[in-house]
Amino acid sequence: MAEAKVLGGAGLRGQVAGQTELCTVGKTGAGLTYRGYDVRELAEKCCFEEVAYLLLYGALPNKSQLAVYKEKLQGLRGLPLELKEVLERIPADAHPMDVMRTGASMLGTLEPELSFEQQRDVADRLLAVFPAIMCYWYRYSHDGVRIDTITDEDGIAGHFLHLLHSKRPSELHVRVMNVSLILYAEHEFNASTFTARVCASTLSDLYSCVTGAIGSLRGPLHGGANEAAMELIERFSSPEEAVTELLAMLARKDKIMGFGHAIYKESDPRNEVIKQWSQRLAEEVGDSVLFPVSVAIDETMWAQKKLFPNADFYHASAYHFMGIPTKLFTPIFVCSRTSGWTAHVFEQRANNRIIRPSADYIGVEQRAVPALDQR
Amino acid sequence: MAEAKVLGGAGLRGQVAGQTELCTVGKTGAGLTYRGYDVRELAEKCCFEEVAYLLLYGALPNKSQLAVYKEKLQGLRGLPLELKEVLERIPADAHPMDVMRTGASMLGTLEPELSFEQQRDVADRLLAVFPAIMCYWYRYSHDGVRIDTITDEDGIAGHFLHLLHSKRPSELHVRVMNVSLILYAEHEFNASTFTARVCASTLSDLYSCVTGAIGSLRGPLHGGANEAAMELIERFSSPEEAVTELLAMLARKDKIMGFGHAIYKESDPRNEVIKQWSQRLAEEVGDSVLFPVSVAIDETMWAQKKLFPNADFYHASAYHFMGIPTKLFTPIFVCSRTSGWTAHVFEQRANNRIIRPSADYIGVEQRAVPALDQR
Repeated sequence: MAEAKVLGGAGLRGQVAGQTELCTVGKTGAGLTYRGYDVRELAEKCCFEEVAYLLLYGALPNKSQLAVYKEKLQGLRGLPLELKEVLERIPADAHPMDVMRTGASMLGTLEPELSFEQQRDVADRLLAVFPAIMCYWYRYSHDGVRIDTITDEDGIAGHFLHLLHSKRPSELHVRVMNVSLILYAEHEFNASTFTARVCASTLSDLYSCVTGAIGSLRGPLHGGANEAAMELIERFSSPEEAVTELLAMLARKDKIMGFGHAIYKESDPRNEVIKQWSQRLAEEVGDSVLFPVSVAIDETMWAQKKLFPNADFYHASAYHFMGIPTKLFTPIFVCSRTSGWTAHVFEQRANNRIIRPSADYIGVEQRAVPALDQR
Repeated sequence: MAEAKVLGGAGLRGQVAGQTELCTVGKTGAGLTYRGYDVRELAEKCCFEEVAYLLLYGALPNKSQLAVYKEKLQGLRGLPLELKEVLERIPADAHPMDVMRTGASMLGTLEPELSFEQQRDVADRLLAVFPAIMCYWYRYSHDGVRIDTITDEDGIAGHFLHLLHSKRPSELHVRVMNVSLILYAEHEFNASTFTARVCASTLSDLYSCVTGAIGSLRGPLHGGANEAAMELIERFSSPEEAVTELLAMLARKDKIMGFGHAIYKESDPRNEVIKQWSQRLAEEVGDSVLFPVSVAIDETMWAQKKLFPNADFYHASAYHFMGIPTKLFTPIFVCSRTSGWTAHVFEQRANNRIIRPSADYIGVEQRAVPALDQR
């Protein structure tokens, strides 16, 4: 073996692991772009299907392309019987990300990707069906009902809220859910996307790539920060109490979730968008606690630590105002990021070399195997 | 973001992605060591459980430790009812690696790893139960029988063969299966192990890491070479025919599976071991075709291309002589490599930083989002 290059940082930090046309993160200016478009502008002007189409098909759809695409996705919402039967066997106290992981894997046994020519259809199927996988399990295990997974909602955002609550969501809620799905859709070589690309590099199937990515997103260092933020903000009954307690937590050096970012150094461009929408929702429901508490924490973190809220922090209150149970926050992330994951798999496949790094050996020197009775 | 370092090779080839005490591959001398022991010596002197213990617990077990460990694994062979019901819903024509992936993921919903203190128990559970996941699905979907997944076989090798054939395997077969599981147990930062480590680096659970690793091993550039080798050798009815046809394939530049290796340059140390055992099995069953055909292909590849057989090539005939269906070859790899995967997860967790590389952006410059009716 040729001498391997030893670089400084653990975790491949700052090492280029491949090329992408999909995304820039942390560049001066926009902060986050998908195929050149500022994520804030996409969140303002587009629905999630436009952004998924952009990532998967390479360009924003025009009016008729978008209509055709939405109709295609609407037709892919149903769950196969066997998959429903699997979801019914997953206990109510299971980790919801384990449900998403198992649902994706099981679907791969029932509707396999037999050749890469099917990759767009499989990606669209996963985008269309994840809300049903999540809600079918949730409603069956928690409420004892077998929901119909078909709705007449126009898009994925409304479809998800309808499945969860068994009623047509408000226009405002559909809008906010579209914004949320857009903000979480893509983020370059984060750990879950990189997992999908490593898997894709063996020329494995798309279900394996997405299943693996879900497993990585499950980790508390990756997904799940919005759930942790929710657990924080709902502890306090007033902004004053939040500030007092937060100062005590900071003095104890407790970890505060939803602030700072590995790559963004000054602000997370997604935060200003979701914060604004969380405020709109707070006004709609007449909230006088959660949103003010969130703002108080936000301001205190900046004053004390110069740490800014990331995409996850105001997502917590926004989701809560729409009646979404906290345990489903990270599975929603899956519904969104599937667009980015699968686009990265397409890109990896189009110019592939198996991802197989080297390791620095720090173990013992070679030695002889002692006989069993001499150990 | 700091300037990322751009290195030459795609696929992180030659780039160090972390440290390990577990394995050396391709170093001068042994070629392959597990914690300092030459894999050839381990395959000669040990059973698979000794090697799994070595990888997971850090040292070769002594006599009483080995007895306790085997007894522990024997007690972990049963499948939960819900998992059996899931396996029964996976069609007979599913990819067997999708079965392993789904089985691992489903077990994670039923018996979750609630804290890292449980990691050894979860690893042992997966090692003990994978043969049953594979054989329960295979026998149910192909033969219509619900097998009992408990046997009184001493070790995993015999247990697997017993489940598959519903009878006690011969001593020779148990010995060869132990050798095979040892040879496939560990191989440094290959793509599936690296997948497991990326997943582990988000502090996700062990089931997610193994589920993701299975997805990567499924890819034809990684696992599956022994199945492809089998498809090759069973085409020919004599060594002479094999040579003639192989020369024609080489002239057409067809890809011949089971030869050469990304890291080994002169020989694969595992080949000499499994070749010898394949020959023993050929003598036992009175084979006069498959083994001579394999040798003829081996010699022709060397004479024509200076390519040597890797671990997979003689595994094909060896497995076949033991009555193992070709489609189960890669799932056996899972039963073995789970020891290496989980040992790497332990190692990643013990000194973790999230694995999050950078990407080289090659997409379009920033641009404005056109209105829907202006696209």
